[in-house]
Amino acid sequence: MNENIDEYYMMEAIKLAKKGIGFTNPNPLVGAIIVKNGQVIGRGYHKRYGELHAEREAIKNCIEEGNKELMKGATIYVTLEPCCHRGKQPPCTEALIEAGFQRVVIGSMDPNPLVAGNGVEILKNAGIKVEGPVANKDCLSLNKIFFHYITKKKPLVTLKVAETLDGKIATFTGESKWITSSKSREKVHFDRHKNMAILVGVATVLKDDPMLNVRLENLEKVSNPIRIVCDTNLNTPIDSKLVQTAKQQETWIVTSIKEEKICAAFKELGVKIINDSSLIKVEKNGHKTIDLKALINYLGARGIDSLIVEGGGSINYSALEEKIVDQIQVYIAPKIFGGIDAKTAVEGQGVKLPKDAFIVENMELERIGEDLFIEGRVKYPNENE
Amino acid sequence: MNENIDEYYMMEAIKLAKKGIGFTNPNPLVGAIIVKNGQVIGRGYHKRYGELHAEREAIKNCIEEGNKELMKGATIYVTLEPCCHRGKQPPCTEALIEAGFQRVVIGSMDPNPLVAGNGVEILKNAGIKVEGPVANKDCLSLNKIFFHYITKKKPLVTLKVAETLDGKIATFTGESKWITSSKSREKVHFDRHKNMAILVGVATVLKDDPMLNVRLENLEKVSNPIRIVCDTNLNTPIDSKLVQTAKQQETWIVTSIKEEKICAAFKELGVKIINDSSLIKVEKNGHKTIDLKALINYLGARGIDSLIVEGGGSINYSALEEKIVDQIQVYIAPKIFGGIDAKTAVEGQGVKLPKDAFIVENMELERIGEDLFIEGRVKYPNENE
Repeated sequence: MNENIDEYYMMEAIKLAKKGIGFTNPNPLVGAIIVKNGQVIGRGYHKRYGELHAEREAIKNCIEEGNKELMKGATIYVTLEPCCHRGKQPPCTEALIEAGFQRVVIGSMDPNPLVAGNGVEILKNAGIKVEGPVANKDCLSLNKIFFHYITKKKPLVTLKVAETLDGKIATFTGESKWITSSKSREKVHFDRHKNMAILVGVATVLKDDPMLNVRLENLEKVSNPIRIVCDTNLNTPIDSKLVQTAKQQETWIVTSIKEEKICAAFKELGVKIINDSSLIKVEKNGHKTIDLKALINYLGARGIDSLIVEGGGSINYSALEEKIVDQIQVYIAPKIFGGIDAKTAVEGQGVKLPKDAFIVENMELERIGEDLFIEGRVKYPNENE
Repeated sequence: MNENIDEYYMMEAIKLAKKGIGFTNPNPLVGAIIVKNGQVIGRGYHKRYGELHAEREAIKNCIEEGNKELMKGATIYVTLEPCCHRGKQPPCTEALIEAGFQRVVIGSMDPNPLVAGNGVEILKNAGIKVEGPVANKDCLSLNKIFFHYITKKKPLVTLKVAETLDGKIATFTGESKWITSSKSREKVHFDRHKNMAILVGVATVLKDDPMLNVRLENLEKVSNPIRIVCDTNLNTPIDSKLVQTAKQQETWIVTSIKEEKICAAFKELGVKIINDSSLIKVEKNGHKTIDLKALINYLGARGIDSLIVEGGGSINYSALEEKIVDQIQVYIAPKIFGGIDAKTAVEGQGVKLPKDAFIVENMELERIGEDLFIEGRVKYPNENE
């Protein structure tokens, strides 16, 4: 029974944590609930990067509600192990000890090497009963991005594809509006809100002139991702929507072009031109391309914890070939386009033999409206088991 | 409680009926179980086209087991409404009345216009209590092929596709062995066993030189489908496996070629050459193709109740374009091939706009091994709701 109660409060804390989606990156999503004698006396969540942590938010809320005295001897439920290091905020362990909690229930441990068990240790040494992990699977899945980023220092890269049952992402005339249902597209926009950046190739810009912003009616405030265009020869049109709206939504173009007079026009409109030579690969035939692996490291070093690749078949294949894709999300609409010339989700050269295929592991299925949604981890040929 | 018992026996009768898969076409699959005082005293199923019906098999079994006397006043469970017309066998209603059953429980009504409620009526008029339908959904699904064929006089046409998550049916080098897991391939072979015929285009014969037979280790006896090749110009090689084994497994080639000296070589090896002019379409440019719609009617008139289209992207698209496909089965393997030149499941010209797409309705999902299996009914653009 007690376990069920713990799980119930932890699930409530997860709900709170999710309110921070889109705003805490590259920090984790964390929720906290303070309970005394079966009553919730305080709630909080990490609202935005740089602001108060969930535990301190809950304590603040508890005090504001006039429950300061009740806090002594209470239980606090936290979806993630409380931090014990000084970052943008003082350590939460200090606040928990000071508040006089009798019991701390944790949803997941923090793999951040600066915390990793030390938070629990410090609390225990202070005589606090520490329990958990409770609702661990949900708490881990809540912070998939954070856990990936904190251990690898690279963004969690998601390849997103919306295709027909026969693998087409457009008809032979290039039309793709719309393949999936409005419910699926809502999820796509929510994922853009959740991720810090979105990557496309210049081909997509030339073909679709997309906005790559978040269009969600049911959210008060949205977090638009940084738009990153791989554009070796700087062919992005100056009058494209991306460039024209670069002052409203961050837009980075990765290119080999260094001529300042060419770049200046983009910069004036607010575009960040990234033309580090270290991000350019020169192939045997002298052909230059963006080194996606180097780009991922570059983004990781700049605090980008999550990236959606939402390009066409060519960049999708490059992303797989360069092994930068961590997970794939495929929306499959219950329809068939056919067409020998219709574009497919992953093109490029392709693998030579079936045994060389990129494998998708741990496929999870969900029906979204009439569509099918598949998510799985990408395993590369010859990757260690 | 009684309802659960009825359902239990009906499910047992379904299991018996399934033993006939592959052998009863174009007759239905039917199972029957005779029960008296909570004891099963007879079992039977329709074993093979032209042989005893399930009810008579069960009565025969009951007598053989020395239970003839018990039959009076017993209940018989039959997955399909007993027939009341004289076909290859005398009407089952007669046998049921004669045996003295008190109660007949039915799994599904027979849409065959020669039966369609008359069977039940005759039994009731003889003073027998008729109940049902019980386990109706399962009994209907058991005879999907029969119900389609008996009402439309055309085979139930299934388009079968095995593809990667990115819609490829081969790598760019043409390699396709194997895309799906052995468990999926086992189901493919069972479905070949279940269906009366299998259709491919000559392109598949030229590329793969397939056998299109049933390779199943766990079945004592298999029913190989009739292999039908659409081959307008009779390009099927005389030394292809299909032609060379035509005496072991029926092989029909549909063609526009009428020259007897060309056809004779095929006929000698056992191939049936179908070159009716009514099956050939001449396009505006003079180009001849097989009229798939006419072919389906032709097959229906010859007792073919079920057909799998297992061709490449070109014939798959033609089959959809000609609206002959009733249902689609898609096996999706959790892997990605990529490749702008890799073959996809449905090619041809393709639809022009997303709104023109072929829609797949009532998608059912199943995981088979590591693969995903999707089955749904095909709805054509502008088809009435």
